[in-house]
Amino acid sequence: MFSCWLSQLCRGLSTPTRRTTQLIWSSASRSLVLSSQRRIPELSSFVARTNTCGELRSSHLGQEVTLCGWIQFRRQNIFLVLRDFHGLVQVVIPQDEPAASVKKILCEAPMESVVQVSGTVISRPPGQKNPKMPTGEIEIKVKTAKLLNSCKKLPFEIKDFMKKTEALRLQYRYLDLRSVQMQYNLRLRSQMVMKMREYLCNLHGFVDVETPTLFKRTPGGAKEFVIPSREPGKFYSLPQSPQQFKQLLMVGGLDRYFQVARCYRDEGSRPDRQPEFTQIDIEMSFVDQTGVQSLIEGLLQYSWPSDKGPVVVPFPSMPFAEALASYGTDKPDTRFGMKIVDISDMFRNTEVGFLQDALSKPQGTVKAICIRKGAKYLKRKDIESIRKFAADHFNEEVLPIFLKTNENWNSPVAKFIMEEQGSGLVKLLETQEEDVVLLTAGEHKRACSLMGKLRLECADLLEARGVVLRDPALFSFLWVVDFPLFLPKEENPQELESAHHPFTAPHPSDIHLLYTEPHKVRSQHYDLVLNGNEIGGGSIRIHNSELQHYVLATVLKEDVKLLSHLLQALDYGAPPHGGIALGLDRLMCLVTGAPSIRDVIAFPKSFRGHDLMSNAPDSIPPEELKPYHIQVSWPTDAETEKSSSNHPCRSES
Amino acid sequence: MFSCWLSQLCRGLSTPTRRTTQLIWSSASRSLVLSSQRRIPELSSFVARTNTCGELRSSHLGQEVTLCGWIQFRRQNIFLVLRDFHGLVQVVIPQDEPAASVKKILCEAPMESVVQVSGTVISRPPGQKNPKMPTGEIEIKVKTAKLLNSCKKLPFEIKDFMKKTEALRLQYRYLDLRSVQMQYNLRLRSQMVMKMREYLCNLHGFVDVETPTLFKRTPGGAKEFVIPSREPGKFYSLPQSPQQFKQLLMVGGLDRYFQVARCYRDEGSRPDRQPEFTQIDIEMSFVDQTGVQSLIEGLLQYSWPSDKGPVVVPFPSMPFAEALASYGTDKPDTRFGMKIVDISDMFRNTEVGFLQDALSKPQGTVKAICIRKGAKYLKRKDIESIRKFAADHFNEEVLPIFLKTNENWNSPVAKFIMEEQGSGLVKLLETQEEDVVLLTAGEHKRACSLMGKLRLECADLLEARGVVLRDPALFSFLWVVDFPLFLPKEENPQELESAHHPFTAPHPSDIHLLYTEPHKVRSQHYDLVLNGNEIGGGSIRIHNSELQHYVLATVLKEDVKLLSHLLQALDYGAPPHGGIALGLDRLMCLVTGAPSIRDVIAFPKSFRGHDLMSNAPDSIPPEELKPYHIQVSWPTDAETEKSSSNHPCRSES
Repeated sequence: MFSCWLSQLCRGLSTPTRRTTQLIWSSASRSLVLSSQRRIPELSSFVARTNTCGELRSSHLGQEVTLCGWIQFRRQNIFLVLRDFHGLVQVVIPQDEPAASVKKILCEAPMESVVQVSGTVISRPPGQKNPKMPTGEIEIKVKTAKLLNSCKKLPFEIKDFMKKTEALRLQYRYLDLRSVQMQYNLRLRSQMVMKMREYLCNLHGFVDVETPTLFKRTPGGAKEFVIPSREPGKFYSLPQSPQQFKQLLMVGGLDRYFQVARCYRDEGSRPDRQPEFTQIDIEMSFVDQTGVQSLIEGLLQYSWPSDKGPVVVPFPSMPFAEALASYGTDKPDTRFGMKIVDISDMFRNTEVGFLQDALSKPQGTVKAICIRKGAKYLKRKDIESIRKFAADHFNEEVLPIFLKTNENWNSPVAKFIMEEQGSGLVKLLETQEEDVVLLTAGEHKRACSLMGKLRLECADLLEARGVVLRDPALFSFLWVVDFPLFLPKEENPQELESAHHPFTAPHPSDIHLLYTEPHKVRSQHYDLVLNGNEIGGGSIRIHNSELQHYVLATVLKEDVKLLSHLLQALDYGAPPHGGIALGLDRLMCLVTGAPSIRDVIAFPKSFRGHDLMSNAPDSIPPEELKPYHIQVSWPTDAETEKSSSNHPCRSES
Repeated sequence: MFSCWLSQLCRGLSTPTRRTTQLIWSSASRSLVLSSQRRIPELSSFVARTNTCGELRSSHLGQEVTLCGWIQFRRQNIFLVLRDFHGLVQVVIPQDEPAASVKKILCEAPMESVVQVSGTVISRPPGQKNPKMPTGEIEIKVKTAKLLNSCKKLPFEIKDFMKKTEALRLQYRYLDLRSVQMQYNLRLRSQMVMKMREYLCNLHGFVDVETPTLFKRTPGGAKEFVIPSREPGKFYSLPQSPQQFKQLLMVGGLDRYFQVARCYRDEGSRPDRQPEFTQIDIEMSFVDQTGVQSLIEGLLQYSWPSDKGPVVVPFPSMPFAEALASYGTDKPDTRFGMKIVDISDMFRNTEVGFLQDALSKPQGTVKAICIRKGAKYLKRKDIESIRKFAADHFNEEVLPIFLKTNENWNSPVAKFIMEEQGSGLVKLLETQEEDVVLLTAGEHKRACSLMGKLRLECADLLEARGVVLRDPALFSFLWVVDFPLFLPKEENPQELESAHHPFTAPHPSDIHLLYTEPHKVRSQHYDLVLNGNEIGGGSIRIHNSELQHYVLATVLKEDVKLLSHLLQALDYGAPPHGGIALGLDRLMCLVTGAPSIRDVIAFPKSFRGHDLMSNAPDSIPPEELKPYHIQVSWPTDAETEKSSSNHPCRSES
């Protein structure tokens, strides 16, 4: 009867996010705590309690215990529910005269006050046991009580935290952290990282090396925060990753390095990005692509929470070209089909104008995806929103076409689609009654990209209509490989830039092309994708100084002076090496099923980069800037206007 | 015979630093690798070798192995010594015609080139075994060899790294890291931290929580680096510790937090300090001072390297007042005696002028230390340097006096010291023949402080003369407790400042004094001292909002608005809590016996805060500062002159 909060939570467990919620304070969470460790941690060592609230069971009956916790709930001055990080327990408030002072403390303390109680674990009377509550068989007969700290009126109730705006949650983060969900997320994060460390350090001899975060701006490091030093005009920079350092560690013979590394990226206001983030950073000497992949597969298998199902290895692998052609993205969500199909050949003789136009161009293609039972689930407004999306985001020569198959074609251009093409489509896409086919035309990459986006859009729409396309309990890992080493620069397609970073080694089969057709060279880069999210990326690096110099100076036209230390290091006996970095925040977000990476970070910034609790960043008096030889250049009114139109005023979080 | 480098090292093992050197590539280092782990780590998983060079023994005889490593040494094109992180192994270069290409590779590759060799483990011929080399019973009969990377002429030989200037070592850090000492230091650091994590996370249920490093300037945070944001005039700050966050985590019910936390402090140029450093940061709810101390004692005992001897717990404890009176410092080196003795009473009627002067003042005292056998070991120039030190650093009313006891007093003021005082001194200080007594007079704290410094100075002098005072293999831990909560401000002694930080709780016995005589209040702060170095400090924190407000606003006269979020958090059910932070760099420096903390950090800054390898901090073009709305205020010539006289031009490192 006192598990109102828990049962409320249980009722609301329809979404993937909520689904995890029930675990932490039930026996499942207990097994989570224990399964990852070789012995049961002592949760009450060194402190003023004998036990945690959440651990008490019938096996503790008769024991004298001291508990510390928060008053979660009180009923008619007879019972209260005490909470700590481990769970809830029912406390019986004594009613006899000699215990009047105890009763007074426990009845007068406001909700969320912190108390210490000592007493005996007793069995609940028959009929009052609560099977939904892990401690529901027992209660505490209190002898003494102490008010450790009183609580003022809260801005919101802890159990309601999920209902509040995120801005309020971030402002009172210390209250939000008391919630079941945040406790679960942060504790699981800690445990998974610990397991990863065991795997790397204890099982495979990796060395945890800390690398500096006060470093030097890297070439083209436009997204790096700068830190003025006490030398006029000299700045440190917060690196986006320990890339250079980990390669130098390999040159230094460390052989196997890892670090749970804080990284920094200043991207201004971007939702679901954080200016500081954490990656599991790994580098090995004498390794190839397969070696790194096996290591990571083993790492995830070893550290994966047991209640999230086993991780099956090896992970499937897909060349970038196939990912683009079939999924329209470099991070395919392989939990469902709806693959993109090239139907260009079918339409070589089409009379449909925009298809004709597209196919008449050298790179022109026609692409389709088939939405199973689309006619049943998608409404007119869905179709409209799909078309609008395509128009808004790909506003050139790209149009979706809708075909309704049950022998009759129903489409704005149905009459132009000959019988032959119709049946060809049915055959190629294996369409059945009530399916909907989306069709677009244009340059291969662009058309794939649009179809890839529409594929996800349609999946969202179908799921909103109750179709289960992507099992939220399924974790679908995928390696994407064979990326191009270079890409044409957006602003000047005649020049090349690194597809990932300039230290990536070319694919051994393509190395001869480097000096003749560099744009055709594939790289030894690999991305790890989970459920359509990139959760990691790495590569075999260039270990030859001349090759590195050629790539930097000749292909990329970078100023090699900025990297002279690295080039020199490669000259002095650098071993072949490679590595990877996993994005820990994103990974934890997917593992916990949290709606945002902010829910797996203790004190995240808002999407505008603010700490809403302490109000960082903040003004600093000019005299405190003096030692750093900088002053603020206040923008003119015109500039302010311009900048605010770039970043339209959005409400926080 | 090929262990020339190792035997060279062994010969030079007289200093504590060098003593550790022999361990890494001998069996002792192997036991270090293994003892801390539950199973033997697989050091060759996922990579192109079958074994490490260092692991091969007679038990591998007949095995086909593939090794990757650096060419350390080559003799007459017959043998070469291959090195990897794990050790050295002898490789026999094939001399037969069919293997000509293998011979060519192995004979032509410059020293420190990286090669891969495959072959058979064979026994060395009788008489050629090398018992000093862990792999000295075997050698590799090579079948195939591959040059993985050639090495240019090195700026210095790896084995000579210790002889080079530190500036050169830092410039070529990636080469320096190949040295025995740096490999040992970084690997031991990784292993000790891993053991600490096991203790905290797996044994005691601590949660590893990452806290932000982009934060807001704290009140009086003059040593905090600033980071301009993209909002004009708004700055982040790099925190000196996660202090606020860890307290907020306790308010958030995390219960037990730890983090291996990167911290930042901008102190300009200070030797043996780093602008970024690492601390083992810990906080617990419902804990008292004893609880935190027991936790740390257990932590160090658990994580201590087995070859450094057992850690005996509990550690002794000493009130701050006693540390000051007996050792003249808050971080006494308790490995040796030579304690400070107050001899004021003996000199109440003295005729010695400066003693009279000192004692006539209200706080006046006379202090002495006795240097056993000082007369035997200290030379005239030592005594002069001691006097000079006292004059240079404590140039007011402080003078050392030298008494030589073998019944005759030998001192500039001997004639003024009456018979009675002389024998009193002998009695109180238990002086014996050939001892030297140093004597000073002045205000208690100042006199103790001087004597404390002279005590260490004399210890250095005696040890330079061959006296063993401080066993380098001994680790002497000590808690220093009962610090004052506040200290008079140096610039204005009428005002108080926090002795440690404003969140420290007052000692329960002294809490009544807070409102009447705050300068008399002792705190619940504790420092952990190892061999005379502060390696940690912590406290029980204030958890009562009103008390915290009183301390901040009334006692310290701080602007409470800057900490309003913390004050508010204490209002909302903050549990009593406390914690500690261990300085990891300093701790590792002491454990490894390294001469500097720079030797336990992979990529340290020079004492002027420079990265000598990459040349950070560096200039940034003005246009890259624009997004941050800052510009450089170039100092005028006059200012430059002034600043360079503050920081006299010293050569780097």
